[in-house]
Amino acid sequence: MVVRSDARSVETRERILAAAAIELADRGYAGTSIALIAEKSATGKGLVQYHFKAKSDIALVIVRSAFSQAPFANVLGVDTVHGLEAVVASIRSVAGAFRDDVQVRAAVRLMREYHLIPVTLPTPYVGWIARIGALLREAEAAGDVRQGLDADREAWHLVGYFYGVQEISNRLSAREDLPERIEEMLARALVTLGTVAPERYL
Amino acid sequence: MVVRSDARSVETRERILAAAAIELADRGYAGTSIALIAEKSATGKGLVQYHFKAKSDIALVIVRSAFSQAPFANVLGVDTVHGLEAVVASIRSVAGAFRDDVQVRAAVRLMREYHLIPVTLPTPYVGWIARIGALLREAEAAGDVRQGLDADREAWHLVGYFYGVQEISNRLSAREDLPERIEEMLARALVTLGTVAPERYL
Repeated sequence: MVVRSDARSVETRERILAAAAIELADRGYAGTSIALIAEKSATGKGLVQYHFKAKSDIALVIVRSAFSQAPFANVLGVDTVHGLEAVVASIRSVAGAFRDDVQVRAAVRLMREYHLIPVTLPTPYVGWIARIGALLREAEAAGDVRQGLDADREAWHLVGYFYGVQEISNRLSAREDLPERIEEMLARALVTLGTVAPERYL
Repeated sequence: MVVRSDARSVETRERILAAAAIELADRGYAGTSIALIAEKSATGKGLVQYHFKAKSDIALVIVRSAFSQAPFANVLGVDTVHGLEAVVASIRSVAGAFRDDVQVRAAVRLMREYHLIPVTLPTPYVGWIARIGALLREAEAAGDVRQGLDADREAWHLVGYFYGVQEISNRLSAREDLPERIEEMLARALVTLGTVAPERYL
């Protein structure tokens, strides 16, 4: 067996994942084969299988990697923006990623097709709901939203509303109108949060 | 070839569709075969294929039938309730059907899996959005909501918000909390519509 240099091996793995994301975002789980990924990454079936046991393994890596990215739960705004400003930034940023980031689009499609994938994918939404809940408590403490609001419940509804907006936008306009729909959603959501100065965020 | 009486033939077709809906709602398109539908409907592969050319044909009939049912676009409240009352009734009724009506649940799952199904399914959402838009115009004329609201845009957002709520509820609680989440959603949506007396609808 040929021993590959670590750097080359990492580069090959990244190339496989990048090609897989494009195909999975476009064709979905059932429409994407290891052979196709090998062809599109200009590697070879053997090399793909050297890096990933199975197609489901590739799916899991793509979903996990999208979930750990900046717009999502864990990373966003830890040191930069806070409270309601961070909530709004997070929703805009996730919407942008849903539209423009092929790795995130692949992850969203795979999460949608989770029934077909024989591995346990991370539970969606819960991390983001928890993060928005924490930010809404900051917003309440700062006096930026209605006092006494149920932060976790409002966070659940923001994520639900967001998900529905991106879904309908996806089905009816291939997400072309998503930025506009997200701004409309934010304007409505800021009202229901009892935001003191909604125009500051729009 | 045995000539079957019409009544018996209709009954068999219904039995096949009922069994197919249960399996499709539970296992999805890829997980349901003609052989399984034949087994569960206690008919036989030949009889299933006598009634339906292909599995995709069964999917299409189930989706079309769900779309033409009472809670959806065309039928709701034509003669009974009007305006904002009908909007609220429609959202509650569709939510109930998403949770409790196996034919609707099968249709929702098939719409979600449309990528896998080699027929053109009806475009989702648009009929319901149009119907809610018309009802919101009635509500505006009756002075029940903010004057000058953009009825079609608000209808788009109601359907989007609804879809997201049922999705998150489905993924995180198997739709157990759906009725409660829908009431929370309605309370928030009535505020953004500038409803004059929201408590009348809750």
